[in-house]
Amino acid sequence: MKTVNVILMGFGNVGQAFLRLAHEKKEFFRIRYGLDIRFYSIFELGGAVHSSRPLNISEILEKYSSLTMFWKNPHWRPDLKLAFALESIKPGVLVECTPSNIKSGGPALSHIHQALDRSWNVVTASKGPLVIDWRGLHEKAEKKHVALKFSGATAAALPALDVALYSLAGAEISRIEGILNGTTNYILTRMKEGIDYREALKEAQSKGIAETDPSLDVSGLDTASKILIISNALLKTGFTLDDMTIEGIDAIPAHLLTEGRKKDRALKLMGVLFKRAEEFRLEVRLTVIDSPHPLFGVDGTNKGIVFTTDTMDSVTVTGGKSDPKGAAASLLKDIINIYRKE
Amino acid sequence: MKTVNVILMGFGNVGQAFLRLAHEKKEFFRIRYGLDIRFYSIFELGGAVHSSRPLNISEILEKYSSLTMFWKNPHWRPDLKLAFALESIKPGVLVECTPSNIKSGGPALSHIHQALDRSWNVVTASKGPLVIDWRGLHEKAEKKHVALKFSGATAAALPALDVALYSLAGAEISRIEGILNGTTNYILTRMKEGIDYREALKEAQSKGIAETDPSLDVSGLDTASKILIISNALLKTGFTLDDMTIEGIDAIPAHLLTEGRKKDRALKLMGVLFKRAEEFRLEVRLTVIDSPHPLFGVDGTNKGIVFTTDTMDSVTVTGGKSDPKGAAASLLKDIINIYRKE
Repeated sequence: MKTVNVILMGFGNVGQAFLRLAHEKKEFFRIRYGLDIRFYSIFELGGAVHSSRPLNISEILEKYSSLTMFWKNPHWRPDLKLAFALESIKPGVLVECTPSNIKSGGPALSHIHQALDRSWNVVTASKGPLVIDWRGLHEKAEKKHVALKFSGATAAALPALDVALYSLAGAEISRIEGILNGTTNYILTRMKEGIDYREALKEAQSKGIAETDPSLDVSGLDTASKILIISNALLKTGFTLDDMTIEGIDAIPAHLLTEGRKKDRALKLMGVLFKRAEEFRLEVRLTVIDSPHPLFGVDGTNKGIVFTTDTMDSVTVTGGKSDPKGAAASLLKDIINIYRKE
Repeated sequence: MKTVNVILMGFGNVGQAFLRLAHEKKEFFRIRYGLDIRFYSIFELGGAVHSSRPLNISEILEKYSSLTMFWKNPHWRPDLKLAFALESIKPGVLVECTPSNIKSGGPALSHIHQALDRSWNVVTASKGPLVIDWRGLHEKAEKKHVALKFSGATAAALPALDVALYSLAGAEISRIEGILNGTTNYILTRMKEGIDYREALKEAQSKGIAETDPSLDVSGLDTASKILIISNALLKTGFTLDDMTIEGIDAIPAHLLTEGRKKDRALKLMGVLFKRAEEFRLEVRLTVIDSPHPLFGVDGTNKGIVFTTDTMDSVTVTGGKSDPKGAAASLLKDIINIYRKE
């Protein structure tokens, strides 16, 4: 049995779903993968629930899972520094679930650097650090011989990055096209059915699919971040958001809407990596696809991605849950793949 | 740079495509993965081209790639025993591409056992040994701390098994449904277009899609072998072909054909793993699906597979080349994934 010591950063929707799933699957992971996952610290704004012995997770889930109660946990240590936790426990995995800024990478960027510096593996659902400094983080992880994994930051339960890195190993990928954001895809699906943008957005918000401030999604920036992270990690490119043309769904040209509403056609927001004059380019574009397209039929909050390769032809992956539980499952997958023996 | 010593079993379509692709991508593999693949033996009926120093592959591909010429290679050693080759070279990977019998596993079964016994890794495109004795082979590989990989035996360039094992790690899979045989799917696609079984089969044969003796494909046995191998490897079940109900496409009931020819419907041959009364079952069935089904649109020689999971919802993979080059690419992928450092 291998022990996996975990420090969890962030106890919002994803962090909580992660803790719950890790707890529910504890026995399964022991039996199937020989892994015993133990939590020592859960950081939230203002400090951490921290102990030098493994935390009692069922107690936290039962009594302290709401944020107001969380701060009343007897192990709550106000102002605890991450560096202290990282140094007081034998290195394992830092699981990063705090919301991060895709323009600055903070605060997750600093968490990840601190963890890698101290030879902790890192699994992150936060996109900011990867958008800002994938190369720096990757090189640090290599130097320290630890893993940096981020399925949760690309398309979560839709296996995107690891299909490209693992299942298509050895093939050269010349093009990637993905529906990578469930919120915009939901809104576009509803708009195809005839309702207008504002109404569709409002509906998505009322269902908890879109956030109160939906700008990151509807502007295309979230899709842009995901295709950028996938491309940089896969092709060792150094794209930044400034290199990209990014379209959103908040001002759809009328002719695209009309086209997309035709039978056997659909308007999709695509993150695209392609080659022009031998150079890779990245874009987020509104695209009308027709029924033979492999992503036709990827509707609602579903996602999908198509990889065009030299030797394996084109490979498409669709599905995967777009919710905190799916994100949590993808974080756990990354942990298993770091520690399992084949 | 890591050196990967290879013994290749079988120099038919897949074996030749594998040798060619490994040669064409030699530099790419060195740069991207730090792997230097070297061939020492290529076995065919009656002996092997073998040398104690790495074989000159470009010479073989240029001058000796046809089977009649192969036997004229100056390194041809009639009656060379595999055991001799395995013992005269530092262990690397045995790549198994001989046609194998799915009722007996031979002769590949014996090749693989011999290789594992001598601590060689094994990558196989042959299904027979895995259908007959997956558990025995798997346990031997574990005991010897070597890898046994078989993407080429499940759905080749369609990433099926490694998506399940790697990309869905930690999720529990309750159902698998796959179009796993390109030949039967091609015939069914043509039949949907209105032509009859005999004509479609003949056409597939003339295009090199179906073999002269198509019985393994059209009887459903090839699909059965693939879903069986995937299930046993994934769930550690011990299914044999005798446990399965297997339908083929050689005697399709008229009502299914009529149903499948309707608009927005399609008749498919599916390998299915499902649960009934808490027990896993395996079947190969003729199934009419309609347009929202994630495998609707998987036509011609294309393949596809759907995994239903507990935490990641359902994940579908489609595409991947159904030809010797695609199979070769999947063998190379397995080799890379054995040797790469993450």
